[in-house]
Formats: sequence, structure tokens, C-alpha cells
Amino acid sequence: MRALVLGGDGYLGWPTALHLSRAGYEVGVADNFARRGYDLEMGVDSLVPIASLHRRVDCWEEVSGKRLEVFIGDLTEGEFVYDMVARFRPDAIVHFAEQRSAPYSMADRRHAVYTQVNNVVGTLNLLYAIAEMDPSIHLVKLGTMGEYGTPNIDIEEGYIEITHRGRTDVLPFPKQPGSFYHLSKVHDSHNIAFCCRTWGLRSTDLNQGVVYGQSTPETTLHPDLATRFDYDAVFGTVLNRFVIQAAAGEPLTVFGKGGQSRGFLDIRDTLACVELAVRNPAQEGEFRVFNQFTETFSLNQLAQKVSDAAGGAEIVHLDDPRVELEEHYYRAAHAKLLDLGLLPFLLGDELLADMLSIARAHLGRLERGALEPKVMWRSTSSTITRTTGPEAEESASERLA
Amino acid sequence: MRALVLGGDGYLGWPTALHLSRAGYEVGVADNFARRGYDLEMGVDSLVPIASLHRRVDCWEEVSGKRLEVFIGDLTEGEFVYDMVARFRPDAIVHFAEQRSAPYSMADRRHAVYTQVNNVVGTLNLLYAIAEMDPSIHLVKLGTMGEYGTPNIDIEEGYIEITHRGRTDVLPFPKQPGSFYHLSKVHDSHNIAFCCRTWGLRSTDLNQGVVYGQSTPETTLHPDLATRFDYDAVFGTVLNRFVIQAAAGEPLTVFGKGGQSRGFLDIRDTLACVELAVRNPAQEGEFRVFNQFTETFSLNQLAQKVSDAAGGAEIVHLDDPRVELEEHYYRAAHAKLLDLGLLPFLLGDELLADMLSIARAHLGRLERGALEPKVMWRSTSSTITRTTGPEAEESASERLA
Repeated sequence: MRALVLGGDGYLGWPTALHLSRAGYEVGVADNFARRGYDLEMGVDSLVPIASLHRRVDCWEEVSGKRLEVFIGDLTEGEFVYDMVARFRPDAIVHFAEQRSAPYSMADRRHAVYTQVNNVVGTLNLLYAIAEMDPSIHLVKLGTMGEYGTPNIDIEEGYIEITHRGRTDVLPFPKQPGSFYHLSKVHDSHNIAFCCRTWGLRSTDLNQGVVYGQSTPETTLHPDLATRFDYDAVFGTVLNRFVIQAAAGEPLTVFGKGGQSRGFLDIRDTLACVELAVRNPAQEGEFRVFNQFTETFSLNQLAQKVSDAAGGAEIVHLDDPRVELEEHYYRAAHAKLLDLGLLPFLLGDELLADMLSIARAHLGRLERGALEPKVMWRSTSSTITRTTGPEAEESASERLA
Repeated sequence: MRALVLGGDGYLGWPTALHLSRAGYEVGVADNFARRGYDLEMGVDSLVPIASLHRRVDCWEEVSGKRLEVFIGDLTEGEFVYDMVARFRPDAIVHFAEQRSAPYSMADRRHAVYTQVNNVVGTLNLLYAIAEMDPSIHLVKLGTMGEYGTPNIDIEEGYIEITHRGRTDVLPFPKQPGSFYHLSKVHDSHNIAFCCRTWGLRSTDLNQGVVYGQSTPETTLHPDLATRFDYDAVFGTVLNRFVIQAAAGEPLTVFGKGGQSRGFLDIRDTLACVELAVRNPAQEGEFRVFNQFTETFSLNQLAQKVSDAAGGAEIVHLDDPRVELEEHYYRAAHAKLLDLGLLPFLLGDELLADMLSIARAHLGRLERGALEPKVMWRSTSSTITRTTGPEAEESASERLA
């Protein structure tokens, strides 16, 4: 089996590539280094240092004897995508290669447009390349639980049976995404579903929850195999950020009331889920949706867990930079990956202790200023770049009335 | 009241601008002439000749004494959009300025990407301009009934109350669009709904049926005020195409079994509906959805009506170039515009006779080859441009297995 991991230099793409390689797949990785570029743009960096892609790939070969094939280029360029698919001839394509930060997408008009064009066009090019070159390729696409929003009914896995005025149909689950990033994933989902229906493509949409953790059985084999550990307010997901705040002796910052509930999963479960999807492909013409998370927590519950693990870190509440319900009903199905055999790592003290120890070991690299939220959903502009001086102040004050 | 009509040089944008101008609005029109460019690309033209935008605008001033303000530029350029909104200061923006042909969007990868980027980015720029300059501007956005697809339950106006496992919520109606064009409108709808929720914008989404007719009370005041009459297989909507086929003594071509049912409306009702929406704006923060059509017909019923009106034109069935259900349940709500006071023009013999007479008067301009469908949904490539020779043949033969 040949698996091509798009976004293979990123937080999850890189460990996924190693995991699949170790599991016996022939693996290719593609990246355009956009993620490292966002760091340069914002003047921040992963708390744990990461090696260059070339060094990582060499290191993996030294450690495992397996060589990853590397494709450097941008999915929004059709020619690159076609050439890569023609050369690698994958059985499965695992597609992580999208701008994946909600705050980044909400920074201003330019970042909103960039996020939607980058994500939607990259996926469109991929769909055409698959349809024209080999419609049997299984597209495993990373979506997000955030596509659903927080409806007042149970969230199902992609589809819902609706009975209305005496008739019944199974229809796509209605989506209420909460940022231009989440919207881009909804656009993708609709585009992919259409291509499955129209061209007979096969795809699995993994609507993933919020991932935590930084260590996998492969990334810990050598420091040069480490993956990112982000804590900044733009790319740092909440549990990772709490852990780094606790390690740094900073208060854990909960946005709003903290009743926001979401699905979460351990980074190792991401890898297991992707492999389960690859190993059990969707049927021809099938657009299959899995909700990929293992546990549901509110922000308050998560903050308390981290505080307890760190021996009583302070928890403070900031105004919520997002526009979202701060207390709401939340129950989402996530049976399909368990049915395929997923054995989850649940969030426990051991994992939190491991994360705290990693964070403490790299505290010298912490930029405290990066923890502070800079993107406010109600504003159409923001200074996520580290501009200083009058221009930055003016921009920050441009708020909607 | 000041109303800015985007896509104001097009089939519906132009008559809408005249209608609003006559109704007493101060009207601006914006266009980038993309629609005329598609004609040049394909080597086809409106059956009824249309004057240049400059000539049209001068003619309207001669006829009515009213001057339309003209903005020439592209909505995908943020600077153009901001400058236009700042200069015109509209109370309402009527947004027709999107690539609106399903076959055009399905021609190949390039046309699919163009359609989605053009439509989504143009609307994103507009949303930002409104949010930053005047959130009270009412965005009246043309959507399409095709966003819903053909579910096996009644289609409601934008939202549906769902009871599921004992809980109830009102959620966006699930969408199953049938082309990259229809998908682009679904993307727009999600983006606009989000901006209403997050920034408090006000918008009305007009999910329009298939429009027929070519004459309005204003366009008939002078030949230079005429709007387009398209019959080609890419941009010609079905009833207009049937009428021109009947006038030309060609058989009426029904794609597939002809049981495909859709909502339809007279061009004069489009103008009335847009004015009703503009006159009764959505509330702050409201994303309001109206289904804008007046009658439902199957393709077979429409073909029969045109055949009867033309004294018995032949009806033939071609293989359906689209991937769609050819026989299905179809019932869609369309009460909200009637509640606002719409008095529909229903499809009758007089209208068909008028259309047939317009078609007959311009038959000398007919390109019979343009009637033939060139875009097949199951193929990822097509020659919509009038390329001839070996390259065209090769391209046409590139079909999915």
C-alpha cells in the first residue's frame, strides 16, 4: 500500500507519515512549508525545536531504514498536484495540507481569503487529479468537528435521518461553522461529497476534534523526529496551551465562561484513526464521514485537569475572543472509528505529566507575548504579525461599532 | 434609497437596475464584463443583440432622465470593492456578480476553480467591505434553488426544524448541490450566514429558480435597453432554449427522462422579488432566505408547453449530460415573497407567444452548433471553446472509465 501524506511537515502530518511508514506503508510526504511560514510571519515558533523536513527524512531513514519520498510544492498549483500523483501513484492520499487555524483565518480580509482559496482550491485540484488519473485512490481528508457548530440536537457522523411533513430522507448533517477556517472545511466537504456522487470517487472525511499531545512512539525515537508543540494564541490548541502556561507559571486562560464543550483526542489516536481509515477504504462513490475524537470536555474541565496535574495552577477567565455559545448542549456521535477497532488513549495524569515535562524542558524558548489572544472575532482586523508602533495600535482599535 | 447592482450588465442585473431606477431608487451598476467574455471564449452570442454598457446607460438616461452610476471592475479585487462601496454609499447591494452557469463550472478543472474562486472571493470581499464601512447595508444575494438538490422531503426556505432523539432545533436546510457552480453558491450561503451571526450584518439570500423570458417593461422601451437572450447549451436556461429551438424548427431537446422538476419564474418576477427584498430589509444580524420561484414544472411539462405554443414542435430526449435524478419527489416552499406581496406572472400562452416572436425576429443570429451540449458531468474535461482539430477530439474523448 502506498500512502501520500499531504502537509507531511506539519504537527500531525509528520507523525502520521512516520506511523504509516513504520506500519509498513510506502509513504510520500508533500509540503509547501506554509506552516513554518506562518511562524515567520508572526515571529513565533514551536516550543519544541523541529528539524528541517530534509533532516527529518534523513533521520527517519537512519532510525528505521525506511525512506520517505518528498514532494515540495503547493496544492493550489494544478501542475504540481498532477505531477505528484502521477509519480507517486498512491493507493491512499491523507490530506492534512490546509491552513488550520481559526484565529489566523479571522485575522483580516486577506487572511480569510487566503484560507478559503488555499484550502478549497488545493482540494479541488486534488479531486480532479484523482478523477483523471486514478479514481480508485482513497482520499482521506481531515475535516473538523467544528464544521457542525453547537446545535441543540445530537451531532451524528456526517448524515442525519430527517422526517418532515410525513416523508423521510437521510441528508447531510446541517453545518454551522464558526470561523472562515471552519467554513473552508465545510466547503471542502460539500465539494468532495459532490465528486464522490458524480465521478464515483471514494473518500473519508475525518471530522477531527481538538488534538492534544506531542509525543508518538516514532517521534520520540530521536530529537530530530520531534513534531511541533504550539502554544501561541493563533495556532496553539487549547490543552497544549494550558500545559505550557502551567509549566511557565502563567495562569491558564479560559476564554469566556468556559462552558464551551468540544471533542478531544490524543495525538496517538489521530494516527491510529488515519491508519484505520486507510486500511478500510470507503467504497467507490462513497463519501464517508467519521467523527474523530474520543472524549468530550468543557474548557473548564480541561483547565481543571491541567491545573491539578501541575499542582494547582491558577485559572483565569478572559473575554472570549470568539463569537460562540459559552454554555450549550453538546453530544456528538463517534462510534464508527471505535467500530473499526480504535482503542483510545484517554486523557490521564500520565499524559499530562509527560506534556508538562516536555514543556518545562523547553521553557527557554517561550515567548510569553505569544500567549495573548490577538484576533477578536467581532473585529475585521487584527495584528497577528508582530508589528509595533502607531500603525499597530490604530489597527487594533478598528472594531465594528 | 441607494441600490448598487453588482453584475449590472448581465441577463438579470441589467433589467433589475432599470426596474429599481424606474421605481425611484438611486442606482449604481458594477460589472467586469466577465459574462461577455464567456461569449467570446465560446464563440457564441445573445440571440437578441445587446448594446454596450455605456450605450445602455446613455440610452436609459435619454429615455428616463435618470442616470445610473457605473463601476467597472472585479469583485475579487478588494481595493475595487472598498472604493466602490465608499463612493456609492449604498443602502442595499444586489449581488448578481457571479459566474452562474453549471455547465461552464463543470467544463474542466480550470473552469471549476475559476468559478469557485471568483464567486466565493468576490462575496468575501463584499462582506468585509460592508462590515468595515457600513454594517447596516442590506446585502441581497442571488442564490439558487439548485443549492438544495432534490431531497426526498419538502424543501423549506433556508431552515428546517429538526427533532432528533428527543431534542429540537432549527438548522440550516441540508444542501446537496449538483455542480461546482451550485456548490459555490452553497459556500457563499455559509459564509454570509456566518458574517450575519458574527458581525451583525443583514442579508437576504434569494434562492432563485430557473428564470425565463426576455422582456421587461423597461427593456422594451428602446432596442438598446434589451437584455440577453441566451440559447447555447452552456448559458441558455431551459425554457429560453426550448423557445429558440422551436422558433428555429429544431427539435426541443429534453435531457434524460425529463422528470426533473424545478422551480421557475418569469424575468419580471425576478425584478419584483428583488425590489420586495430591498424594500423590506433583513434585520441586523439576520440571514434571511427566500425561495424565489412561482411555479414548479418538470422538463417534460415545459417542453410540452413550448411545443403546443409553437404549433407542435418535435420533442426529443438526449442522454442527460448531468448527473441528477431524472424522476424524483419535488416540493419546495415559496411563501415568503408572496407574503411580502408578490403577484406572480404565471407561465401562459401570451408570454410564450411573445418569446417565440422575439426568437423568430432574430433567427438570423442563431448558431445551431451552440445548442448541442458539450459539457458532460461524468467527464472532467470538455471543449466549450470552439477549438477544432485533433486536440479537441482528444480532449472530448478523455472520459472517466
